[in-house]
Amino acid sequence: MLETRKIISIGEAAHAIMTHQKCGTIEHVPLMACEGRFLAKDMIATCDLPHFTRSAFDGFAVRAEDTASARPEKPLTLEVVDHIGAGMVTDKIVTTNQAVRIMTGAQMPAECDAVVALELAKEFQKDGKTFVTIKRAAKIGDHISYQGEETKLGTTLVTKGTRIHAGISASLATFGYETVPVAKKPVVGILATGSELLEVSDPLVPGKIRNSNTSMIVAQIHKIGGKAIYFGKLADDFETSYQKINEAFAKVDFLITTGGVSVGDYDLMPDVYQKMNAHILFNKVAMRPGSVTTVAEKDGKLIFGLSGNPSACYVGLELFVRPSIRAMLFSSAPHLQKITAYLGSDFTKPNPFTRFIRSELGFRDGKVFANPVGIDKSNIILSLIKANSLAVLPGGTRGFQAGDQVEVLLIDDHEGSEWPW
Amino acid sequence: MLETRKIISIGEAAHAIMTHQKCGTIEHVPLMACEGRFLAKDMIATCDLPHFTRSAFDGFAVRAEDTASARPEKPLTLEVVDHIGAGMVTDKIVTTNQAVRIMTGAQMPAECDAVVALELAKEFQKDGKTFVTIKRAAKIGDHISYQGEETKLGTTLVTKGTRIHAGISASLATFGYETVPVAKKPVVGILATGSELLEVSDPLVPGKIRNSNTSMIVAQIHKIGGKAIYFGKLADDFETSYQKINEAFAKVDFLITTGGVSVGDYDLMPDVYQKMNAHILFNKVAMRPGSVTTVAEKDGKLIFGLSGNPSACYVGLELFVRPSIRAMLFSSAPHLQKITAYLGSDFTKPNPFTRFIRSELGFRDGKVFANPVGIDKSNIILSLIKANSLAVLPGGTRGFQAGDQVEVLLIDDHEGSEWPW
Repeated sequence: MLETRKIISIGEAAHAIMTHQKCGTIEHVPLMACEGRFLAKDMIATCDLPHFTRSAFDGFAVRAEDTASARPEKPLTLEVVDHIGAGMVTDKIVTTNQAVRIMTGAQMPAECDAVVALELAKEFQKDGKTFVTIKRAAKIGDHISYQGEETKLGTTLVTKGTRIHAGISASLATFGYETVPVAKKPVVGILATGSELLEVSDPLVPGKIRNSNTSMIVAQIHKIGGKAIYFGKLADDFETSYQKINEAFAKVDFLITTGGVSVGDYDLMPDVYQKMNAHILFNKVAMRPGSVTTVAEKDGKLIFGLSGNPSACYVGLELFVRPSIRAMLFSSAPHLQKITAYLGSDFTKPNPFTRFIRSELGFRDGKVFANPVGIDKSNIILSLIKANSLAVLPGGTRGFQAGDQVEVLLIDDHEGSEWPW
Repeated sequence: MLETRKIISIGEAAHAIMTHQKCGTIEHVPLMACEGRFLAKDMIATCDLPHFTRSAFDGFAVRAEDTASARPEKPLTLEVVDHIGAGMVTDKIVTTNQAVRIMTGAQMPAECDAVVALELAKEFQKDGKTFVTIKRAAKIGDHISYQGEETKLGTTLVTKGTRIHAGISASLATFGYETVPVAKKPVVGILATGSELLEVSDPLVPGKIRNSNTSMIVAQIHKIGGKAIYFGKLADDFETSYQKINEAFAKVDFLITTGGVSVGDYDLMPDVYQKMNAHILFNKVAMRPGSVTTVAEKDGKLIFGLSGNPSACYVGLELFVRPSIRAMLFSSAPHLQKITAYLGSDFTKPNPFTRFIRSELGFRDGKVFANPVGIDKSNIILSLIKANSLAVLPGGTRGFQAGDQVEVLLIDDHEGSEWPW
């Protein structure tokens, strides 16, 4: 039966999905285990940074005014009254013509306002006392890091929804965050349909292929920041499928099915959605691959009916499932980041629909290129090995030449965008 | 005491490290859990892909020769002798003027060599039999994916050392790899030195700062692909330090210490290395930050003495520890990837040493920019929050202007380079 579906734009489809967002939830993880997680709260500086004024160099802490007369031809000698390393605090009061030998990071003596570098000073002993000779005047602030110079108590360091990396970890450590509030990983269920599918461990038989979509989706969800659960392969039977989908749906934040959303003779999903009383947000999107991507909503929860075709499945997930997951991870930029790049080779096929071309980013002489990888039929799996981006070739165009500027969506990026459509 | 050290170039330092590589070891993980791991072997196609000739469209499988006379004004009628979906195989022999209704992905009947799309055919019933009328001749190969069209049995799909992502997972699934040989995660020990250091959970006290390096390093190692173990903070005592370092060293593939490698009055590490009979590969590198980075070797194992200064520590790790870890992950491109980008803002300070400027990559109109983030003193932690790259400003230059082309090392990239120096 040839069914008629209402086709909508990619932006309309993404918008429909974003109007059914689920709220993320918070859990606390040890700082040492937070790399790759997403902040659930804005993180605040709990003190000034530095929280005390300190030396930025190994040398001698001095009172700049004492050194005003120092010249190469008229060196000045100060008495060294203490010697402190990082972590130490002097208990001496530094008065006129006195200095403290000080290492990088040590707290400045309250009376001192400059540091003379070790290399520019000459220390010597005399009569059981230590002295230092300097040949140049120090200026107030020389080699000093002032309290609050880097940031002030109460400043927002990094906003919620940001993926935590090493630099963020270091900052959180500095401010005493032993545990970190992060978004709980959204749980995404996966059900595969298609009587042609074998499990990965099965030997090949004529006419059947191994299920490659599930392990692909598991990896995509892991990368995006969710937790995937595979509920298995659906038998090619309506009642069983309906029941399994219902059961899985109850246990997850989102459910993904692969296959069965086309208009082929064996595509069960439309009828399953109907029996579930799920509200179809859309079942046809003006794009290639992935035009049959179908998304339904029930009780505020989404079911993503992705194509069984690997490339279409891949693109559908990155375009529509990713923002749902990232929104639950508190991201304000849940969509794929879009940049402009030069197309690395010709793509001369005219496009009635917007087409996503699997590409590998390349850099040359300050320019960024999107190099299409392999043949781009939608049933090609291996081109996904090299792809780290999708060149977006708009519908209604007559093809593109190498060197044309095109928009490119970055798949491996964690920054995202608020709205690329 | 002012010590004299022999300064070497970054390339010489990296080369010294790479001559003391440890071999990686292999473990097998389930396909569903391999995202982000590194392949320990080249992976091979275990069959042709597709492994049978199949329909690439919903339609009718025909013998092209039968259709040669079909014209809009002279339609041709074929008998439909079977109806198969993906995963099915017909048991009919298709002879002259017969066809099989076939769905995308189904195996082509052996006698057929073209598919006529559903939309271009009209099916009807007559006398209990099914027929189809077509108005155009089909060409051999129309809408067919041939066996081995995508790849042949025995082809190398992806080489060892590659980080596994979704596209690779999908390909491995296709070829039946239920478990995947990956590199065991190299174990990297961390010991922090510095009497100024508090643990992250400690309240602040005058003159002391929280240890931010350890959680930063843990996150960096996690990102790079290793496993980090924190052995704690070293007391400021030579014998205890020596003992703890020796103990930790025995338990890991690499040991990282932070702090104590400078020439300050409290820097113990040089003496510890000596007592360990470790061979110092270098203790001064012509770069900023991180010039005091010290690397020693004992029994074929490396100890990385990174600066206690967060930025220097960060850079030292990315430049020198990363390639050691990635080499154990079987990567042939273990170093940071280097690209050319436009500098986003002026950096007018002359550089006696090569300087690494923490930067944020930006894309505009097909160009890539490295935008320096924040002030770039080496004691600045917060600029690491935005940094995802290091602009490389070579020594001996008089500063750079916004718009100049500069080399940039990509920190978040997983592709790497064979040799960027």
